[in-house]
Parts: sequence; structure tokens; C-alpha cells
Amino acid sequence: MSDAKYDVLTVGNAIVDIIARAEDDFLVKENITKAAMNLIDADRAEHLYSVMGPAIETSGGSAGNTAAGLASFGGSAAYFGKVADDHLGEIFTHDIRAIGVDFNVKPLNGTPPTARSMIFVTPDGERTMNTYLGACVELAPEDVDADVVASSQVTYFEGYLWDPPRAKDAIRLAAQIAHDNKRKVALTLSDSFCVDRFRAEFLELMKSGTVDIIFANEAELKSLYETSDFATALEALKGDTALAAVTRSEAGSIVVTPQETVEVRARPIDKLEDTTGAGDLYAAGFLYGLTKGRGLADCARIGGLAAAEVIQHIGPRPQVSLRDLLDQSGI
Amino acid sequence: MSDAKYDVLTVGNAIVDIIARAEDDFLVKENITKAAMNLIDADRAEHLYSVMGPAIETSGGSAGNTAAGLASFGGSAAYFGKVADDHLGEIFTHDIRAIGVDFNVKPLNGTPPTARSMIFVTPDGERTMNTYLGACVELAPEDVDADVVASSQVTYFEGYLWDPPRAKDAIRLAAQIAHDNKRKVALTLSDSFCVDRFRAEFLELMKSGTVDIIFANEAELKSLYETSDFATALEALKGDTALAAVTRSEAGSIVVTPQETVEVRARPIDKLEDTTGAGDLYAAGFLYGLTKGRGLADCARIGGLAAAEVIQHIGPRPQVSLRDLLDQSGI
Repeated sequence: MSDAKYDVLTVGNAIVDIIARAEDDFLVKENITKAAMNLIDADRAEHLYSVMGPAIETSGGSAGNTAAGLASFGGSAAYFGKVADDHLGEIFTHDIRAIGVDFNVKPLNGTPPTARSMIFVTPDGERTMNTYLGACVELAPEDVDADVVASSQVTYFEGYLWDPPRAKDAIRLAAQIAHDNKRKVALTLSDSFCVDRFRAEFLELMKSGTVDIIFANEAELKSLYETSDFATALEALKGDTALAAVTRSEAGSIVVTPQETVEVRARPIDKLEDTTGAGDLYAAGFLYGLTKGRGLADCARIGGLAAAEVIQHIGPRPQVSLRDLLDQSGI
Repeated sequence: MSDAKYDVLTVGNAIVDIIARAEDDFLVKENITKAAMNLIDADRAEHLYSVMGPAIETSGGSAGNTAAGLASFGGSAAYFGKVADDHLGEIFTHDIRAIGVDFNVKPLNGTPPTARSMIFVTPDGERTMNTYLGACVELAPEDVDADVVASSQVTYFEGYLWDPPRAKDAIRLAAQIAHDNKRKVALTLSDSFCVDRFRAEFLELMKSGTVDIIFANEAELKSLYETSDFATALEALKGDTALAAVTRSEAGSIVVTPQETVEVRARPIDKLEDTTGAGDLYAAGFLYGLTKGRGLADCARIGGLAAAEVIQHIGPRPQVSLRDLLDQSGI
């Protein structure tokens, strides 16, 4: 795969995060499902902003964060996602390009506006997202630049893309182009409630070989196989995909293939500030390792390194060079 | 002063901060004066954004940060400053109201847009600001709500307000209303280069009694009295104002009146991340103490407490409740 222009192309909902701290009882009072990605409409977005505390704005979006992480490691990354030609769209575009990611999807002219997610970080460091999809609903097959897909070692996309109406068509097209060019396709399951909405389709993507690599956390995996037993879910996963990385928060991560299981411990951290971006950055580190020919245990360790950085500050993208962290890590 | 509705009214340039990390050689290459507030025009703003790394957006503005700090302590605060009716203006308005500050200045309809400051944080934690004043240039006497001034124990304003054309008229009007109502007026010198631009006017404000309380850091004070000797500057200051608080970074702060000098050590911190807002939050803590009847040493300690919080994370406003910090501090 060494002739690829890009190590990884990521595809996802292009979102600006609006992040504030909140107490748990605020989530209860506002009827927000904790730790989940809650989809909201424009009226609900207006209401939540009116009751939200002082916030910071920063580019986010799961696959956008992963692309930023890859670039921070020094990998070459491209991104597909849809913003509008408004101020938040400019912010998103600036930030992802500034970290070195190629992003050239045409912005939507006019409404709906660029997507935003109001993220409440509770005292335990958990993040709870409330996402207004805005311009993301317009992502469609015509946004797929075939040359970029063909020249990316891995095309990685979010399960969240099953929420907007036509993005899944873009993904199926991209997956076809990738495989036609002997590239790999990766999917993150994104969120246990998202898995619940699209379980049959995600399983079909796996069983049909449309995706080659799966990223999931424990809750998503249990949701996928409708079991409360992790070992059962993991065993089922081994039968359904060629390669999967499963994150387990402070318990580290497990990489499985039909032949092997590799378990890696989590890196110790000083203080958990904000879990936003943890899974996205794990995927960034894992894919960086994979595209650089590292073994699976190292891929998992590099993923854990990136996740550990991002959960120790507010915001979903790295604040320091992951390249430097990796150089210092001894991995 | 106990019949006041507000502990403090702050007046300043209403700015959204765009914050990114940068190396020192970036500042040199872009010809930016380090640690200063550099005023820029729209073209320069566009250029700097194009070469800036990935950023976060967060409400700022010196006096806005001070008002936010006062509210975080549980004080009652109001704010005057000018935003435009655009997205950044909405962000600024949301954030300052969400922390509990009364802010009702009419936004500017149309252009220029809401002010923004591109802030580069170097590895030493120092912040270097590049401010496009935008809508701030429209702040004028008609934005002064006399009832708010009359019912504020202290009206506090930035030296930075001498840069836009008519804000100084608003300040002179507000100072008159404040004194007519037996209230106090406070000025922060803001920035040593700002002092250099308006030295004579700032000294006149002090000597004429238009301001009662001065906030400054060491560099600003030396600039004010055109001396490199701190003791000389401090002695001159004692003759020119009834009360002044001078911050000295890790050396703590010194409070002077014509009769006394009180020196307070800085609080130890774990790691300096970003000095943005340090002086603003010191003023918030000091004024909170003063309006609650604390002695000068305690006022300086409370100021130091707030400054220590804000320099340990990216961004110019507190990320945790200063009320809680104060309760735990034993001050």
C-alpha cells in the first residue's frame, strides 16, 4: 500500500463543538441521555444554548478529530464532510486544514447552517453530546472525490453517517472505489444508540466485507450483538470482521482478528478532564501505526497514547504534537 | 456602598478570542510583538488567520474576562461593550450572560463585525494578542446606561478603550455618573504599549481623580512613569492615586495607597499553560474582595487565586467556580 498519497481518508459529519461544563442534574433536568450523542433539531438547539453555561467553540466531528490526530502524528490525511459557507464552516475548514489535513469538499451554499454539537462535560469527565446536523444532511455521493479515495491506504468513516439521509450512499460508493483500488475500509461504530438505530446495516457492512476494520468501544460492541456479556460480543466480532480494535476506557484496548487476540493496557493519566475525542484519537493512533507497518500491539499502544492526551484537556483534538509524544514514548 | 445593585460594572472592548499555540520563531517571522496586544486591520487579520494553527474560539476581552471572574466568585456584575449582530457577537453575548453578568448594550447592526483577537500561546505560556477591533470602534456615550453606572459600587474600565475613537467619551461620562453617585472608578493600564500610546491621558485621569483605583503590571507601571526602576515607579504611583494594585507575575502583587504598601506572594501553580486573562482575573478577585469589605492583603490574595486558576489552562476565563476555590482556599 506504499504508493498511496494519503495514509488515511476519514469521512464524517463536519461539526463545530460548543463545550461547557455541567452538573449531572442539569442533564437529568433537560432530559439528555448522558454519555450519548443525542440528535437535536434547530429549536432544541436554541433552547439548549439558552440554558448552557459559558462555552468554548472548537472544531470537532468524530472523523474530523481522527484526521486531525493522524496529521498530528505526521501522517498524511484527507477528510470528507459537509459544512455550510458560514462562520462556523470557516472555523471548521481553517482548523482541519491548519493541522495539515486535505479538505476540499464544496461547502453548502446557504442553509442549513454548519452543524454544531453542544457538549456538556460533567464532573466525572464524561461528555454528553447534543448534535444539530445542519449542513451534514447534504453530504452525498457527489462529494466523493474518487481520486482521493483511490489514493488513500485506508478510508475510515463514522457510523454516525447513517443518520443524515444520503451519506451512506457516499460511503458505499467510497468503499467500492477503495476496494477496486485494493485499499482498506474502516468503520467506527460511533455510539451505542447509533448502533441500536442501524444494527442490521452495520452487521451487513461487516459480513459483506464492505468494511475491513472495525473500531468500537465496549458499549457499542455489546449493543451490536445485543448482549451484556463482553466475551460473547468479542467472540461474535472475531467471526464477522478481519480486524477490530475495541476500546475499554481505563481497561485499555483489545485487538482481534479471526486468528488472534491482543490486549494492551491503558496509559496512566494525571487527571481525566474531558473524554470528548477519546475514541476518535485512539482510531487516529491505531491507523497511524497500521499504515506505517507497525504490529497490532503497537497500533493499540499508539492509539492509547493519543487517547490519553486528548482526555486530559477540554476539547476533542490534540493540543500538543502527537508526533513528539510518540517519539518520547518509546513505543 | 451596600445599597448597590452591582458590585462591579466593567467596560471594555468586547472580543472573541481565537487561540492557538505557536513557536517563538513564528512570532518573529510574522513580525508580531511578543506578549503585547497588537492592533491589526481586517487584511492583517485575514493573513494571520491563514497562517495560524488549529484554534479554539472563546469569549474574551479584558474587562469581559474581569466581569466573568466577578460573577464566578458570586459577585454581581454588569458589562458594557459593543458586539455586532453576527455569530461571534452571539457567542460573546451568550457566554457573558451565561456566567451571570448583566449585558444589555445594543449590538451593532451590520458592519464592522464583532471584534476578534488572534492569540498565540508560546511554549513558555506567554500570550501574544493580535486584535481586530471591529464593532468595538462604535462604543460611544449613548451606550452608557446611567442607571447601571449609578448602581455599581465600582465602575472598572480598560486602558484599551483609548484605542477606539469614542469609547473614552463613554468612560468620562460613566466616571462622572459614578462619582455623582459616590461610587468608585477603576482603571487597568492594560498593556505597556497601550500606556505608551496614552501616557499623558492616563496620568491625567489619575491626577484629576477621574479614577480612584489603578491596576497595572510591572511593565505597564514602568512605561507609565518612563523608568526602568520599579521602586521609582511605585513611589510615583503612590503620589498619583488613592489605591493601586500592581501584579508581578510569579513575584506576586503589591497594593499601594498613599499611606501603606502591602505585598502578597503568588500562589504556587502546577504548570503555566497560558497567561491570557491573568491580569483580568487578578482584578476580578481583587475587586470582589474590595466590594465585600475585605482588607487589602486579602483582596490581593483573592486576586492571586483567580489569576492562578486562569493561567493553568488555555483560555482567559475561569473553567471552575471561583466561589468554590475561594471557599476552599482559607483566605
